[in-house]
Amino acid sequence: MSPATFIDAIQNQLQLTQYGQHPPELYDPIRYIMSLGGKRIRPLMTLMAAYLFSDDWQKAIQPALGVEVFHNFTLMHDDIMDQAPLRRGQLTVHEKWNHNIAILSGDVMLVNAYELLLHVEVDKLKAVMTRFNRTAAEVCEGQQLDMNFEKRWDVTESEYIEMIRLKTSVLLGYALELGGLIAGADAETTRHLYEGGVNIGIGFQLKDDLLDVYGDPEKFGKQVGGDILANKKTFLLIEALEKAKGPVRDELTGWLNKPVTDRAEKVQAVTAIYETLQIRQITESRISEYFDKGFANFDQINADPARKTLLTQFVRQLAERES
Amino acid sequence: MSPATFIDAIQNQLQLTQYGQHPPELYDPIRYIMSLGGKRIRPLMTLMAAYLFSDDWQKAIQPALGVEVFHNFTLMHDDIMDQAPLRRGQLTVHEKWNHNIAILSGDVMLVNAYELLLHVEVDKLKAVMTRFNRTAAEVCEGQQLDMNFEKRWDVTESEYIEMIRLKTSVLLGYALELGGLIAGADAETTRHLYEGGVNIGIGFQLKDDLLDVYGDPEKFGKQVGGDILANKKTFLLIEALEKAKGPVRDELTGWLNKPVTDRAEKVQAVTAIYETLQIRQITESRISEYFDKGFANFDQINADPARKTLLTQFVRQLAERES
Repeated sequence: MSPATFIDAIQNQLQLTQYGQHPPELYDPIRYIMSLGGKRIRPLMTLMAAYLFSDDWQKAIQPALGVEVFHNFTLMHDDIMDQAPLRRGQLTVHEKWNHNIAILSGDVMLVNAYELLLHVEVDKLKAVMTRFNRTAAEVCEGQQLDMNFEKRWDVTESEYIEMIRLKTSVLLGYALELGGLIAGADAETTRHLYEGGVNIGIGFQLKDDLLDVYGDPEKFGKQVGGDILANKKTFLLIEALEKAKGPVRDELTGWLNKPVTDRAEKVQAVTAIYETLQIRQITESRISEYFDKGFANFDQINADPARKTLLTQFVRQLAERES
Repeated sequence: MSPATFIDAIQNQLQLTQYGQHPPELYDPIRYIMSLGGKRIRPLMTLMAAYLFSDDWQKAIQPALGVEVFHNFTLMHDDIMDQAPLRRGQLTVHEKWNHNIAILSGDVMLVNAYELLLHVEVDKLKAVMTRFNRTAAEVCEGQQLDMNFEKRWDVTESEYIEMIRLKTSVLLGYALELGGLIAGADAETTRHLYEGGVNIGIGFQLKDDLLDVYGDPEKFGKQVGGDILANKKTFLLIEALEKAKGPVRDELTGWLNKPVTDRAEKVQAVTAIYETLQIRQITESRISEYFDKGFANFDQINADPARKTLLTQFVRQLAERES
């Protein structure tokens, strides 16, 4: 078994999935956003977690896709709220169609996610649904907090971590937990899967923030410094705003408040402030902390060592990615 | 037992329902829209249907509220799409807060609806959820068709009926079916409940259309003729557009195309065209047809006669309402 086996299974099932037909304005945007690709990490986690405890990991495929459809539903609605023009280099749904269609297609996509999650054994349905409802509500809470933070300059590190935990990490935790639930793992084990996924997820998001400033331009897909140019409240900026005092703080807020004339100059200047405040080191150590916690959670899981290695090695590769 | 017993139970449980706390921007709009009132007809139908087959109708209260929360979720999102300023005489959520909050609160409200629906016995969960997913998707389909129809002048009667069936009637059908499912009714019985609800629901919607033109101004809550002034594609207008030929058609499309200068004049003139085309009689006979079909569906149900009468008399009162 290799990650490719699981990825192929996900791609095959994605091809087979019917989201609905009529009216086309409602269902075409679902097929569109699902066709834009993505690494399909969440359903992959579900299948790998199921394989830890059962040879019949294939029974987790449809629920795993439920998590992926839910994730893409949040992207469709978040893109409206963020007024994002592009998603994976293609027009967002509200740009390609319109706002109303993006709202309503998103709604029926959430219903589709629930329908896919129904494909579990009856005795597991209540747990699968209860945990999913909690997770889905938390993802919405995280998105609302993220929007609230846009208007604030006093967001603390712990508030930021809590926001990304809700907005992005609990769904990775749920994806792993779901695999365990479907494969019949006990409550303690599914808790370790969930906690591990949440910690790794926080690490992933902090790494995203770090790479946007310190990524190798040759390997990093996007323009380095994009978050700095957009004044995006990343872990790095929040940390810098918490740490900076006196003239350093004045310089930082100066860059945040003045219109960008020379893009490279702003990126360089803010990066230099980060250097002064040792933001890179702080961020790297926080990333390691969350990855370590996550792998410690996985260590607690009692399962076939080879299968565990398959999961942890895959996660480690993702954690060490540079783009 | 009387309808008031069920209504009291619904109101009590509504008071107890927690939708979530933090952040308040996400959950306050849910409490707000749920507090605007409404007749709570859908959860009432669920409880009355459960009572047909079981003394323990109270176990249907939380799922019944799931249907009510879902209904209010659709209102919150529909109001954004329709750019409606008011809902039950109060500001709509997107007006009182903003668009993004109305999108996201609506999303978490849909999750809340699913959570309430989980409160059924485990052996009923799959059927309750599968049928709900189908219904929820159809409600979205109906809303999309309704938006599509705004741009068309050639909507046929059967297309219109199909649109209102999806947008409003299937949820009434589901509300009744849900009560039956929870109370352990057999598949044939739940089908009669569903079909009955759908037919009655179509009748209700057609009656709404009729009352907007022919309602007694003393009894009708809104201004009579509002739909005519807004060129709203009701059953009456669609029927008139299908039937009108020659000069009558020219006169009708004339009124639809020219800006309103004298409101009473337009209402009177279009109503006169409806008279010429016997639209009132056609609409009334279609309403009776659907109500008759609905009551015929209920006749097929084998349950305690007194309990059946409680349900059918209540539905008949709703059907005969004049506001």
